[in-house]
Amino acid sequence: MPTVSVIVPGAGGGRRFGPGRKILQPLAGEPVFLRALRLFATRDEVRQLLLVVAEADRATIEADYAAELSATGTVLVTGGATRTESVRNALAHVDAGAELICVHDAARPCTPPDRIDAVFAAAGDCAAALLAVPVDATCKRVDDERRVIETVDRIGLWAAQTPQVFAADLLRRAYRDATDATDDAALVERLGHAVRVVPGDARNVKITTPDDLALAEAILGAGA
Amino acid sequence: MPTVSVIVPGAGGGRRFGPGRKILQPLAGEPVFLRALRLFATRDEVRQLLLVVAEADRATIEADYAAELSATGTVLVTGGATRTESVRNALAHVDAGAELICVHDAARPCTPPDRIDAVFAAAGDCAAALLAVPVDATCKRVDDERRVIETVDRIGLWAAQTPQVFAADLLRRAYRDATDATDDAALVERLGHAVRVVPGDARNVKITTPDDLALAEAILGAGA
Repeated sequence: MPTVSVIVPGAGGGRRFGPGRKILQPLAGEPVFLRALRLFATRDEVRQLLLVVAEADRATIEADYAAELSATGTVLVTGGATRTESVRNALAHVDAGAELICVHDAARPCTPPDRIDAVFAAAGDCAAALLAVPVDATCKRVDDERRVIETVDRIGLWAAQTPQVFAADLLRRAYRDATDATDDAALVERLGHAVRVVPGDARNVKITTPDDLALAEAILGAGA
Repeated sequence: MPTVSVIVPGAGGGRRFGPGRKILQPLAGEPVFLRALRLFATRDEVRQLLLVVAEADRATIEADYAAELSATGTVLVTGGATRTESVRNALAHVDAGAELICVHDAARPCTPPDRIDAVFAAAGDCAAALLAVPVDATCKRVDDERRVIETVDRIGLWAAQTPQVFAADLLRRAYRDATDATDDAALVERLGHAVRVVPGDARNVKITTPDDLALAEAILGAGA
Protein backbone atom coordinates (compact mmCIF):
# COMPACT_ATOMS: atom_id res chain seq x y z
CA MET A 1 0.00 0.00 0.00
CA PRO A 2 1.35 3.48 -0.85
CA THR A 3 2.06 5.84 2.05
CA VAL A 4 -0.62 8.43 2.76
CA SER A 5 -0.55 11.93 4.23
CA VAL A 6 -3.97 12.98 5.48
CA ILE A 7 -5.19 16.60 5.44
CA VAL A 8 -8.27 17.30 7.57
CA PRO A 9 -9.67 20.78 6.81
CA GLY A 10 -11.54 22.15 9.80
CA ALA A 11 -11.10 25.90 9.47
CA GLY A 12 -14.47 26.65 7.86
CA GLY A 13 -16.83 29.08 9.52
CA GLY A 14 -19.71 26.62 9.81
CA ARG A 15 -22.15 29.50 9.47
CA ARG A 16 -25.14 27.21 8.97
CA PHE A 17 -24.38 25.48 12.27
CA GLY A 18 -25.21 28.64 14.20
CA PRO A 19 -23.35 29.73 17.33
CA GLY A 20 -20.61 27.40 18.54
CA ARG A 21 -17.86 25.73 16.49
CA LYS A 22 -19.26 22.59 14.91
CA ILE A 23 -15.96 20.67 14.86
CA LEU A 24 -15.62 21.22 18.63
CA GLN A 25 -19.07 19.84 19.48
CA PRO A 26 -19.10 16.65 21.54
CA LEU A 27 -20.19 13.56 19.64
CA ALA A 28 -20.42 10.30 21.60
CA GLY A 29 -18.03 11.80 24.14
CA GLU A 30 -15.39 13.35 21.89
CA PRO A 31 -15.29 16.44 19.69
CA VAL A 32 -16.26 15.94 16.06
CA PHE A 33 -12.75 16.76 14.72
CA LEU A 34 -11.15 14.15 16.99
CA ARG A 35 -13.51 11.46 15.73
CA ALA A 36 -12.53 12.43 12.17
CA LEU A 37 -8.81 12.19 13.05
CA ARG A 38 -9.26 8.79 14.71
CA LEU A 39 -10.58 7.36 11.42
CA PHE A 40 -7.00 7.61 10.14
CA ALA A 41 -4.73 7.64 13.21
CA THR A 42 -4.31 3.88 13.54
CA ARG A 43 -4.03 3.00 9.85
CA ASP A 44 -0.64 1.55 8.88
CA GLU A 45 -0.42 3.37 5.56
CA VAL A 46 -1.07 6.78 7.11
CA ARG A 47 2.24 8.46 7.92
CA GLN A 48 1.09 12.01 8.57
CA LEU A 49 -2.08 13.60 9.94
CA LEU A 50 -2.55 17.36 9.45
CA LEU A 51 -5.50 19.13 11.04
CA VAL A 52 -6.24 22.55 9.55
CA VAL A 53 -7.93 24.89 12.04
CA ALA A 54 -8.95 28.52 12.09
CA GLU A 55 -6.48 30.95 13.66
CA ALA A 56 -9.16 31.73 16.28
CA ASP A 57 -9.49 28.08 17.33
CA ARG A 58 -5.85 27.10 17.33
CA ALA A 59 -4.88 28.07 20.88
CA THR A 60 -7.97 26.42 22.38
CA ILE A 61 -7.44 23.19 20.50
CA GLU A 62 -3.74 23.10 21.38
CA ALA A 63 -4.46 23.66 25.05
CA ASP A 64 -7.52 21.45 25.49
CA TYR A 65 -6.51 18.49 23.32
CA ALA A 66 -2.73 18.35 23.61
CA ALA A 67 -2.77 14.71 24.76
CA GLU A 68 -5.17 13.57 22.02
CA LEU A 69 -3.27 15.41 19.28
CA SER A 70 -0.04 13.86 20.47
CA ALA A 71 -1.54 10.36 20.79
CA THR A 72 -2.94 10.50 17.27
CA GLY A 73 0.26 12.05 15.86
CA THR A 74 -1.67 15.07 14.61
CA VAL A 75 0.08 18.28 13.52
CA LEU A 76 -1.91 21.52 13.51
CA VAL A 77 -1.87 23.86 10.52
CA THR A 78 -3.47 27.31 10.47
CA GLY A 79 -6.17 27.68 7.82
CA GLY A 80 -6.78 30.46 5.32
CA ALA A 81 -9.78 32.51 4.28
CA THR A 82 -11.16 29.80 1.99
CA ARG A 83 -11.11 26.03 1.94
CA THR A 84 -8.72 26.13 -1.00
CA GLU A 85 -6.28 28.34 0.92
CA SER A 86 -6.54 26.06 3.94
CA VAL A 87 -5.69 22.94 1.96
CA ARG A 88 -2.85 24.81 0.23
CA ASN A 89 -1.42 25.77 3.63
CA ALA A 90 -1.52 22.11 4.64
CA LEU A 91 0.07 20.96 1.38
CA ALA A 92 3.17 22.96 2.33
CA HIS A 93 3.54 20.64 5.35
CA VAL A 94 3.09 17.35 3.51
CA ASP A 95 6.19 15.12 3.57
CA ALA A 96 8.11 15.18 0.29
CA GLY A 97 8.00 11.37 0.26
CA ALA A 98 4.21 10.98 0.61
CA GLU A 99 2.79 8.94 -2.24
CA LEU A 100 -0.90 9.73 -1.73
CA ILE A 101 -2.60 12.73 -0.15
CA CYS A 102 -6.02 12.19 1.39
CA VAL A 103 -8.31 15.14 2.12
CA HIS A 104 -11.12 14.49 4.59
CA ASP A 105 -13.58 16.95 6.15
CA ALA A 106 -13.11 17.49 9.90
CA ALA A 107 -16.92 17.61 10.06
CA ARG A 108 -17.32 14.08 8.66
CA PRO A 109 -16.75 11.83 11.68
CA CYS A 110 -18.64 8.61 10.81
CA THR A 111 -16.94 7.29 7.66
CA PRO A 112 -17.05 3.47 7.68
CA PRO A 113 -13.47 2.08 7.64
CA ASP A 114 -14.17 -0.19 4.66
CA ARG A 115 -15.00 2.90 2.57
CA ILE A 116 -11.62 4.40 3.50
CA ASP A 117 -9.98 1.11 2.46
CA ALA A 118 -11.81 1.29 -0.86
CA VAL A 119 -10.98 4.89 -1.74
CA PHE A 120 -7.32 4.45 -0.73
CA ALA A 121 -7.11 1.38 -2.98
CA ALA A 122 -8.75 3.19 -5.90
CA ALA A 123 -6.40 6.16 -5.57
CA GLY A 124 -3.41 3.81 -5.46
CA ASP A 125 -4.71 2.32 -8.67
CA CYS A 126 -5.64 5.44 -10.68
CA ALA A 127 -4.17 8.47 -8.83
CA ALA A 128 -7.47 10.24 -8.11
CA ALA A 129 -10.54 8.88 -6.33
CA LEU A 130 -13.33 10.08 -4.10
CA LEU A 131 -16.28 8.66 -2.23
CA ALA A 132 -19.70 9.65 -3.53
CA VAL A 133 -23.29 8.43 -3.33
CA PRO A 134 -25.95 8.45 -6.04
CA VAL A 135 -28.28 11.45 -5.78
CA ASP A 136 -31.74 10.16 -4.81
CA ALA A 137 -33.70 13.37 -4.95
CA THR A 138 -35.02 14.95 -8.09
CA CYS A 139 -32.90 18.08 -8.51
CA LYS A 140 -34.17 21.39 -9.83
CA ARG A 141 -32.24 24.32 -11.23
CA VAL A 142 -33.89 27.36 -9.68
CA ASP A 143 -33.58 31.08 -10.53
CA ASP A 144 -33.09 33.99 -8.12
CA GLU A 145 -36.84 34.26 -7.59
CA ARG A 146 -37.10 30.55 -6.74
CA ARG A 147 -38.82 29.59 -9.95
CA VAL A 148 -37.84 26.26 -11.42
CA ILE A 149 -35.76 26.62 -14.58
CA GLU A 150 -35.40 22.90 -15.20
CA THR A 151 -35.38 19.44 -13.71
CA VAL A 152 -31.76 18.26 -13.78
CA ASP A 153 -31.17 14.85 -15.35
CA ARG A 154 -30.59 12.45 -12.47
CA ILE A 155 -28.83 9.80 -14.53
CA GLY A 156 -25.22 9.50 -13.42
CA LEU A 157 -25.57 12.22 -10.79
CA TRP A 158 -23.55 11.52 -7.62
CA ALA A 159 -23.03 13.60 -4.47
CA ALA A 160 -19.37 13.87 -3.52
CA GLN A 161 -18.22 12.95 -0.02
CA THR A 162 -14.74 12.70 1.44
CA PRO A 163 -12.15 11.13 1.69
CA GLN A 164 -10.87 12.37 -1.66
CA VAL A 165 -7.46 10.86 -2.36
CA PHE A 166 -4.84 11.75 -4.96
CA ALA A 167 -1.31 11.01 -6.04
CA ALA A 168 0.72 13.63 -4.15
CA ASP A 169 2.22 15.26 -7.25
CA LEU A 170 -1.15 15.43 -8.96
CA LEU A 171 -2.83 17.25 -6.06
CA ARG A 172 0.11 19.64 -5.71
CA ARG A 173 -0.17 20.44 -9.42
CA ALA A 174 -3.96 20.93 -9.13
CA TYR A 175 -3.43 23.45 -6.34
CA ARG A 176 -0.69 25.40 -8.08
CA ASP A 177 -3.12 27.69 -9.93
CA ALA A 178 -6.28 26.92 -7.99
CA THR A 179 -8.54 29.82 -7.13
CA ASP A 180 -11.49 28.17 -5.47
CA ALA A 181 -13.56 25.04 -5.74
CA THR A 182 -16.14 23.26 -3.63
CA ASP A 183 -14.06 20.09 -3.56
CA ASP A 184 -10.54 18.92 -4.33
CA ALA A 185 -11.56 16.54 -7.09
CA ALA A 186 -12.86 19.50 -9.13
CA LEU A 187 -9.34 20.97 -9.22
CA VAL A 188 -7.91 17.69 -10.48
CA GLU A 189 -10.70 17.43 -13.05
CA ARG A 190 -9.67 20.88 -14.35
CA LEU A 191 -6.25 19.42 -15.18
CA GLY A 192 -8.03 16.91 -17.41
CA HIS A 193 -6.96 14.00 -15.21
CA ALA A 194 -9.38 11.08 -14.79
CA VAL A 195 -11.06 10.91 -11.37
CA ARG A 196 -12.74 7.74 -10.15
CA VAL A 197 -15.85 7.58 -7.98
CA VAL A 198 -15.97 4.91 -5.27
CA PRO A 199 -19.39 4.18 -3.73
CA GLY A 200 -19.59 5.94 -0.37
CA ASP A 201 -22.10 5.38 2.38
CA ALA A 202 -25.21 7.18 3.62
CA ARG A 203 -23.71 7.03 7.13
CA ASN A 204 -20.77 9.15 5.97
CA VAL A 205 -22.64 12.34 6.92
CA LYS A 206 -21.17 15.82 7.12
CA ILE A 207 -22.10 17.86 10.18
CA THR A 208 -23.66 21.05 8.84
CA THR A 209 -26.52 21.82 11.25
CA PRO A 210 -27.18 20.83 14.89
CA ASP A 211 -29.68 18.22 13.61
CA ASP A 212 -26.79 16.46 11.89
CA LEU A 213 -25.13 15.95 15.27
CA ALA A 214 -28.15 13.95 16.48
CA LEU A 215 -27.98 11.93 13.30
CA ALA A 216 -24.26 11.25 13.77
CA GLU A 217 -24.91 10.14 17.37
CA ALA A 218 -27.51 7.70 16.06
CA ILE A 219 -25.09 6.38 13.43
CA LEU A 220 -22.25 5.90 15.90
CA GLY A 221 -24.66 4.30 18.38
CA ALA A 222 -25.67 1.80 15.70
CA GLY A 223 -22.03 0.70 15.42
CA ALA A 224 -20.90 2.43 12.22
CA MET B 1 -57.77 29.04 1.77
CA PRO B 2 -58.56 26.91 -1.30
CA THR B 3 -59.76 23.36 -0.69
CA VAL B 4 -57.14 20.65 -1.05
CA SER B 5 -57.30 16.98 -2.03
CA VAL B 6 -54.21 15.10 -0.89
CA ILE B 7 -52.74 12.13 -2.78
CA VAL B 8 -50.23 10.04 -0.83
CA PRO B 9 -48.41 7.61 -3.16
CA GLY B 10 -47.24 4.56 -1.24
CA ALA B 11 -47.28 1.81 -3.86
CA GLY B 12 -43.57 1.89 -4.70
CA GLY B 13 -41.49 -1.24 -4.31
CA GLY B 14 -38.99 0.29 -1.91
CA ARG B 15 -36.32 -2.03 -3.30
CA ARG B 16 -33.49 -0.16 -1.57
CA PHE B 17 -35.19 -0.69 1.79
CA GLY B 18 -34.61 -4.44 1.58
CA PRO B 19 -37.09 -7.00 2.83
CA GLY B 20 -40.24 -5.63 4.49
CA ARG B 21 -42.51 -2.85 3.24
CA LYS B 22 -41.04 0.46 4.26
CA ILE B 23 -44.34 2.31 4.57
CA LEU B 24 -45.57 -0.34 7.04
CA GLN B 25 -42.54 -0.07 9.34
CA PRO B 26 -43.27 1.22 12.84
CA LEU B 27 -42.01 4.72 13.52
CA ALA B 28 -42.53 6.12 17.03
CA GLY B 29 -45.35 3.61 17.47
CA GLU B 30 -47.22 3.96 14.18
CA PRO B 31 -46.52 2.83 10.63
CA VAL B 32 -44.73 5.31 8.40
CA PHE B 33 -47.71 5.79 6.03
CA LEU B 34 -50.05 6.64 8.93
CA ARG B 35 -47.66 9.33 10.17
CA ALA B 36 -47.65 10.78 6.64
CA LEU B 37 -51.48 10.77 6.54
CA ARG B 38 -51.72 12.44 9.95
CA LEU B 39 -49.76 15.42 8.64
CA PHE B 40 -52.88 16.30 6.64
CA ALA B 41 -55.82 14.64 8.39
CA THR B 42 -56.61 17.46 10.80
CA ARG B 43 -56.05 20.40 8.45
CA ASP B 44 -59.19 22.42 7.74
CA GLU B 45 -58.45 23.00 4.08
CA VAL B 46 -57.93 19.29 3.36
CA ARG B 47 -61.18 17.75 2.17
CA GLN B 48 -59.95 14.47 0.81
CA LEU B 49 -57.10 12.09 1.68
CA LEU B 50 -56.21 9.37 -0.83
CA LEU B 51 -53.61 6.74 0.04
CA VAL B 52 -52.27 4.85 -2.97
CA VAL B 53 -51.07 1.34 -2.07
CA ALA B 54 -49.79 -1.66 -3.97
CA GLU B 55 -52.38 -4.31 -4.83
CA ALA B 56 -50.38 -6.74 -2.67
CA ASP B 57 -50.61 -4.49 0.42
CA ARG B 58 -54.21 -3.39 0.13
CA ALA B 59 -55.94 -6.22 2.00
CA THR B 60 -53.46 -6.08 4.89
CA ILE B 61 -53.76 -2.33 5.27
CA GLU B 62 -57.57 -2.46 5.08
CA ALA B 63 -57.73 -5.19 7.71
CA ASP B 64 -55.07 -3.94 10.12
CA TYR B 65 -55.73 -0.20 10.00
CA ALA B 66 -59.48 0.07 9.39
CA ALA B 67 -60.02 2.25 12.46
CA GLU B 68 -57.11 4.60 11.65
CA LEU B 69 -58.11 4.95 8.00
CA SER B 70 -61.66 5.74 9.04
CA ALA B 71 -60.58 8.20 11.74
CA THR B 72 -58.34 10.09 9.33
CA GLY B 73 -60.96 9.98 6.53
CA THR B 74 -58.53 8.16 4.25
CA VAL B 75 -59.70 6.42 1.07
CA LEU B 76 -57.50 3.68 -0.41
CA VAL B 77 -56.61 3.62 -4.10
CA THR B 78 -54.79 0.76 -5.81
CA GLY B 79 -51.51 1.82 -7.40
CA GLY B 80 -50.06 1.04 -10.81
CA ALA B 81 -46.75 -0.24 -12.09
CA THR B 82 -45.07 3.17 -11.89
CA ARG B 83 -45.40 6.22 -9.67
CA THR B 84 -46.97 8.11 -12.55
CA GLU B 85 -49.62 5.41 -13.00
CA SER B 86 -50.30 5.41 -9.28
CA VAL B 87 -50.89 9.14 -9.13
CA ARG B 88 -53.03 8.94 -12.26
CA ASN B 89 -55.20 6.26 -10.59
CA ALA B 90 -55.65 8.55 -7.61
CA LEU B 91 -56.48 11.57 -9.78
CA ALA B 92 -59.53 9.68 -11.03
CA HIS B 93 -60.82 9.74 -7.43
CA VAL B 94 -60.20 13.42 -6.74
CA ASP B 95 -63.40 15.42 -6.13
CA ALA B 96 -64.44 17.51 -9.11
CA GLY B 97 -64.62 20.55 -6.82
CA ALA B 98 -61.09 20.31 -5.39
CA GLU B 99 -59.16 23.53 -5.99
CA LEU B 100 -55.65 22.27 -5.17
CA ILE B 101 -54.17 18.78 -5.35
CA CYS B 102 -51.29 18.00 -3.02
CA VAL B 103 -49.02 15.01 -3.67
CA HIS B 104 -46.97 13.80 -0.71
CA ASP B 105 -44.78 10.70 -0.39
CA ALA B 106 -46.12 8.06 2.02
CA ALA B 107 -42.48 7.53 3.00
CA ARG B 108 -42.02 11.15 4.16
CA PRO B 109 -43.50 11.17 7.66
CA CYS B 110 -41.72 14.09 9.40
CA THR B 111 -42.69 17.19 7.38
CA PRO B 112 -42.90 20.20 9.71
CA PRO B 113 -46.46 21.65 9.64
CA ASP B 114 -45.23 25.17 8.90
CA ARG B 115 -43.68 23.89 5.68
CA ILE B 116 -47.04 22.44 4.64
CA ASP B 117 -48.63 25.83 5.41
CA ALA B 118 -46.03 27.52 3.24
CA VAL B 119 -46.32 25.25 0.20
CA PHE B 120 -50.13 25.32 0.33
CA ALA B 121 -50.04 29.13 0.41
CA ALA B 122 -47.60 29.31 -2.50
CA ALA B 123 -49.70 26.94 -4.60
CA GLY B 124 -52.81 28.99 -3.84
CA ASP B 125 -50.88 31.99 -5.08
CA CYS B 126 -49.23 30.66 -8.24
CA ALA B 127 -50.85 27.26 -9.02
CA ALA B 128 -47.69 25.12 -8.72
CA ALA B 129 -45.29 24.86 -5.80
CA LEU B 130 -43.03 22.34 -4.14
CA LEU B 131 -40.77 22.08 -1.12
CA ALA B 132 -37.07 21.78 -1.87
CA VAL B 133 -33.76 22.32 -0.10
CA PRO B 134 -30.51 23.71 -1.52
CA VAL B 135 -28.09 20.96 -2.53
CA ASP B 136 -25.10 21.11 -0.15
CA ALA B 137 -22.92 18.46 -1.69
CA THR B 138 -20.73 18.99 -4.69
CA CYS B 139 -22.42 16.91 -7.41
CA LYS B 140 -20.56 14.98 -10.07
CA ARG B 141 -21.84 13.65 -13.38
CA VAL B 142 -20.36 10.15 -13.61
CA ASP B 143 -20.13 7.73 -16.56
CA ASP B 144 -20.94 4.00 -16.61
CA GLU B 145 -17.45 3.17 -15.42
CA ARG B 146 -17.71 5.59 -12.49
CA ARG B 147 -15.33 8.13 -13.94
CA VAL B 148 -16.21 11.76 -13.29
CA ILE B 149 -17.41 13.53 -16.43
CA GLU B 150 -17.91 16.91 -14.79
CA THR B 151 -18.61 18.75 -11.56
CA VAL B 152 -22.18 20.04 -11.82
CA ASP B 153 -22.64 23.73 -11.12
CA ARG B 154 -24.14 23.96 -7.63
CA ILE B 155 -25.53 27.47 -8.07
CA GLY B 156 -29.32 27.34 -7.96
CA LEU B 157 -29.40 23.58 -7.48
CA TRP B 158 -32.19 22.41 -5.14
CA ALA B 159 -33.29 18.92 -4.13
CA ALA B 160 -37.04 18.44 -4.49
CA GLN B 161 -39.10 17.18 -1.55
CA THR B 162 -42.84 16.80 -1.14
CA PRO B 163 -45.52 18.12 -0.65
CA GLN B 164 -45.83 19.26 -4.25
CA VAL B 165 -49.08 21.19 -4.72
CA PHE B 166 -50.88 22.25 -7.88
CA ALA B 167 -54.11 23.81 -9.12
CA ALA B 168 -56.30 20.75 -9.75
CA ASP B 169 -56.88 21.45 -13.45
CA LEU B 170 -53.18 22.06 -14.04
CA LEU B 171 -52.13 18.72 -12.50
CA ARG B 172 -54.85 16.85 -14.40
CA ARG B 173 -53.60 18.43 -17.63
CA ALA B 174 -49.98 17.54 -16.77
CA TYR B 175 -50.97 13.91 -16.30
CA ARG B 176 -53.02 13.65 -19.47
CA ASP B 177 -50.05 12.71 -21.65
CA ALA B 178 -47.53 11.89 -18.94
CA THR B 179 -45.34 8.88 -19.46
CA ASP B 180 -43.02 8.92 -16.50
CA ALA B 181 -41.20 11.39 -14.31
CA THR B 182 -39.38 11.32 -11.00
CA ASP B 183 -41.67 13.97 -9.56
CA ASP B 184 -44.96 15.68 -10.31
CA ALA B 185 -43.49 19.14 -10.73
CA ALA B 186 -41.49 17.90 -13.73
CA LEU B 187 -44.74 17.08 -15.55
CA VAL B 188 -46.08 20.58 -14.89
CA GLU B 189 -42.76 22.09 -16.00
CA ARG B 190 -43.17 20.22 -19.31
CA LEU B 191 -46.38 22.16 -19.90
CA GLY B 192 -44.31 25.34 -19.67
CA HIS B 193 -46.11 26.43 -16.51
CA ALA B 194 -44.12 28.28 -13.83
CA VAL B 195 -43.36 26.22 -10.71
CA ARG B 196 -42.29 27.87 -7.48
CA VAL B 197 -39.85 26.42 -4.96
CA VAL B 198 -40.63 26.91 -1.27
CA PRO B 199 -37.76 26.28 1.19
CA GLY B 200 -38.26 22.84 2.74
CA ASP B 201 -36.55 21.42 5.79
CA ALA B 202 -33.73 18.98 6.42
CA ARG B 203 -36.05 17.11 8.79
CA ASN B 204 -38.42 16.38 5.91
CA VAL B 205 -36.60 13.11 5.19
CA LYS B 206 -37.80 10.35 2.89
CA ILE B 207 -37.48 6.81 4.22
CA THR B 208 -35.37 4.95 1.66
CA THR B 209 -33.16 2.64 3.72
CA PRO B 210 -33.49 1.18 7.24
CA ASP B 211 -30.98 3.81 8.45
CA ASP B 212 -33.48 6.49 7.49
CA LEU B 213 -35.97 5.02 9.97
CA ALA B 214 -33.50 5.61 12.81
CA LEU B 215 -33.05 9.14 11.56
CA ALA B 216 -36.82 9.71 11.43
CA GLU B 217 -37.17 8.39 14.99
CA ALA B 218 -34.51 10.88 16.10
CA ILE B 219 -36.31 13.72 14.30
CA LEU B 220 -39.70 12.87 15.78
CA GLY B 221 -38.11 12.43 19.21
CA ALA B 222 -36.68 15.94 18.92
CA GLY B 223 -40.20 17.29 18.46
CA ALA B 224 -40.37 17.92 14.72
